[in-house]
Amino acid sequence: MWKPDRQSKKPLYEQIADHLQQRIAYSEFPPGSLLPSERKLAEQLGVNRSTVVQAFAELRSIGIIESQTGSGTRVSMSKWGATPKYTPNWNRYAESGNFLPNPAFLRRIREALNQEPSLIDMASGDLAGDMAPIHEITKLMSENQYASYLGYDNPQGYIPLREALVTFLDKYRSIPSTPSSILITSGSQQSLFLITQCLLSPGDAVAIEDPSYCYSLPMFHSAGLRLFRLPIEERDVYPETIRNLYKKHRIRMVFLNPNFQNPSGTVFNVQRRKSFLDAASELGLPIVEDDPFSLTAYNGPVPPSLKAIDANGTVIYIGSFSKIAASGMRIGWMVAPNAIVERLADARQQMDFGLSVIPQQVVAQFINSAYFEPHLERLRMQLQFKRDLLIESIENELPGLMTYEAPKGGLHLWCKLHPDVQDGKLLEEAIKRGMVFVPGSVYGSDASYVRFNYARAKADEIGPGIAKFAAALRELM
Amino acid sequence: MWKPDRQSKKPLYEQIADHLQQRIAYSEFPPGSLLPSERKLAEQLGVNRSTVVQAFAELRSIGIIESQTGSGTRVSMSKWGATPKYTPNWNRYAESGNFLPNPAFLRRIREALNQEPSLIDMASGDLAGDMAPIHEITKLMSENQYASYLGYDNPQGYIPLREALVTFLDKYRSIPSTPSSILITSGSQQSLFLITQCLLSPGDAVAIEDPSYCYSLPMFHSAGLRLFRLPIEERDVYPETIRNLYKKHRIRMVFLNPNFQNPSGTVFNVQRRKSFLDAASELGLPIVEDDPFSLTAYNGPVPPSLKAIDANGTVIYIGSFSKIAASGMRIGWMVAPNAIVERLADARQQMDFGLSVIPQQVVAQFINSAYFEPHLERLRMQLQFKRDLLIESIENELPGLMTYEAPKGGLHLWCKLHPDVQDGKLLEEAIKRGMVFVPGSVYGSDASYVRFNYARAKADEIGPGIAKFAAALRELM
Repeated sequence: MWKPDRQSKKPLYEQIADHLQQRIAYSEFPPGSLLPSERKLAEQLGVNRSTVVQAFAELRSIGIIESQTGSGTRVSMSKWGATPKYTPNWNRYAESGNFLPNPAFLRRIREALNQEPSLIDMASGDLAGDMAPIHEITKLMSENQYASYLGYDNPQGYIPLREALVTFLDKYRSIPSTPSSILITSGSQQSLFLITQCLLSPGDAVAIEDPSYCYSLPMFHSAGLRLFRLPIEERDVYPETIRNLYKKHRIRMVFLNPNFQNPSGTVFNVQRRKSFLDAASELGLPIVEDDPFSLTAYNGPVPPSLKAIDANGTVIYIGSFSKIAASGMRIGWMVAPNAIVERLADARQQMDFGLSVIPQQVVAQFINSAYFEPHLERLRMQLQFKRDLLIESIENELPGLMTYEAPKGGLHLWCKLHPDVQDGKLLEEAIKRGMVFVPGSVYGSDASYVRFNYARAKADEIGPGIAKFAAALRELM
Repeated sequence: MWKPDRQSKKPLYEQIADHLQQRIAYSEFPPGSLLPSERKLAEQLGVNRSTVVQAFAELRSIGIIESQTGSGTRVSMSKWGATPKYTPNWNRYAESGNFLPNPAFLRRIREALNQEPSLIDMASGDLAGDMAPIHEITKLMSENQYASYLGYDNPQGYIPLREALVTFLDKYRSIPSTPSSILITSGSQQSLFLITQCLLSPGDAVAIEDPSYCYSLPMFHSAGLRLFRLPIEERDVYPETIRNLYKKHRIRMVFLNPNFQNPSGTVFNVQRRKSFLDAASELGLPIVEDDPFSLTAYNGPVPPSLKAIDANGTVIYIGSFSKIAASGMRIGWMVAPNAIVERLADARQQMDFGLSVIPQQVVAQFINSAYFEPHLERLRMQLQFKRDLLIESIENELPGLMTYEAPKGGLHLWCKLHPDVQDGKLLEEAIKRGMVFVPGSVYGSDASYVRFNYARAKADEIGPGIAKFAAALRELM
């Protein structure tokens, strides 16, 4: 993206004024629209705020923009001469529709990372660049011709990828399936979007774990669902809770993340899986089993998935390539009864007309290749190593100030803070010092928690990241 | 997908019974769920219906399925022993949500093509395999390392692709833009989905052309929009019509497809573009300009796009790689005011967390490469050649039976039939004889029309395809 040229003889403020004038002329900022604030522009362009103030003054002097105290800087309505023309009220359009914006904290984190790429990222939910199988995939791509078919794909997804997943699901998760029972999606995100938008109606009640990744997903609110909580520390009584919720609120679906739950890191044990599945089966209540982390288990496999022990077709199973290899491929999968897979494949055609064939071909070959198993082994070792580094740093920097349980798989550490600490203020202090994490309230948590992702940062950033976090925390205590 | 093995010693019906029993055991067809009909299964598996009848009888004899006259064949509720368990009522879930199914004719065409891949396809809206730049893209992919970054992409899309599109849009469509004003989408389909879902609210009135591709998109109905018509033969009076519609119904958005309109093939002339844009500007009414075909113009460039002459930020411009190179890459783009691009990028994160980076890298390189311009020239020649073949076949097979105007670009021929011919019946007759087209009613047309896509079929299939169509038509006249 554009930045001013510091080698140029032209002053920075003039370069910025020219750049903005161009974007205004191109209608990226139409007449009457609001410009980004001086602070935001200064951060985006990597200059002092005073330079932006000077650029704005320049544009104001030639009548292109107008500033009013308290309402920001706008493009002049009159800039294009005397003819009275009107621009659509784009801000009103931007506020329409059913889609709520992402939670403010998540937008703040993304904005901070865009503006300052050197921030130590312990927030984003994916793997570090050096943990993705980049060399293996590059090698496969140079050896094979992935561009041999470039037309529209089958609505359920590329058939050889579904065939590869039948073997994969059987081998790693003991899930019996056929290609016709699998839908390929753009990661778990699209699976959840399809389920919440197409299988449920506004006003429907659903149960989700508390804390849960689902709270961070405005899609649940966008779909008009009523959310009921299954507190994670009460997993023993989930079957009882779900029977009560069903009686009282006619719960229509349950969302579970049984392995290395995001954010708590806990694992649902075998006994509870069975009794919970029995309860749901009795009620005819569908379970959505979100299982992105099970293959990262550091100390041997996790219990069988709910889908593997589901004899009644009660479970919709969701998996993804994102947390075990590369989020940028945007490949996820769903195993569900035939009526559901066909319905969602048809609805997805309306949204995006399916996925690109190329990443599907690449992932199919990678999963089938001899590279896959060694990649997983290396990934598990790297994750465990980083988890240990993180815990060591916390013990060094913040002894006794946070409580947590060391996860045995996954990417996250969930830490409880002193209840007086406001997680939002803490985030701002941490950004100032050069790191980001996710505040616990994003996951629906009432108490003060933070989630660190130890997979995203490089190993040698984890110590410094926690040192910055510790400085931010001390500032507030 | 699975088909019975005709070389095996095991009878076909036993193979089919075993296959179905497995899918039932795997909960793809849970207890109580409906199996596909005997006819549908026979078509899918490529066997006689009597073989499926025999397989069903086998499964019925061991109590796995039950048939009731008039209500089809279901999986037995009792198959897994005496414990009373209940399966979710999946069919009710499949009928929930706001997403209407695709139009019946389009589902029928897809089903027919899945079952019988040898059908001559004059329906699907994409290019033939040999018109896509497969060799060029294969070459680029073997020369470059596209897997160098595999994390989540920027929410607006891969920056180098947006940079390549700035040059592309300027060169081919005279549209001034910056990377920050571009959103990369999964084809035009996702652009339209984002606009209808996120910028409009249920009950909003919008204007679309008649006939129009938009009628074939259930997304307009799914979003609860009220549709008003701009009859394509009255393009001269569009400005007047739009003023009246605005006064009467508070139209909130207009959807136009100005170049080689789908399905009519017509081009909006320069004078009308200007007066229409003026009318919309006066009303502050946004125009969505869908422009997938302009680069296919056979006889020199089309008039400047509305976006190119839009001084007030009235236009959202949509383009795509699908009709000019390869639909399977799933790459489209939108140029819009900043407030809109940022809003839609944020909403899209909820739906699928963005696109895979790999096809974006490939398309960026292809557009920038020396392959692109020769590819376009070859494409235009091939399309014109196929259009001429189609018209010649029609004149040979159906002299005087259909009226049409030869399009000067795009992929489609729009033909008017005798008003007594029912397009749905005609489709079934055509499928029987081995070809598919799209019935005109899919585009909202009242009269009897058909749309032929001459880009999808191979050149030597066009004559035989029209011969089959002619036989079907004669059957009904």
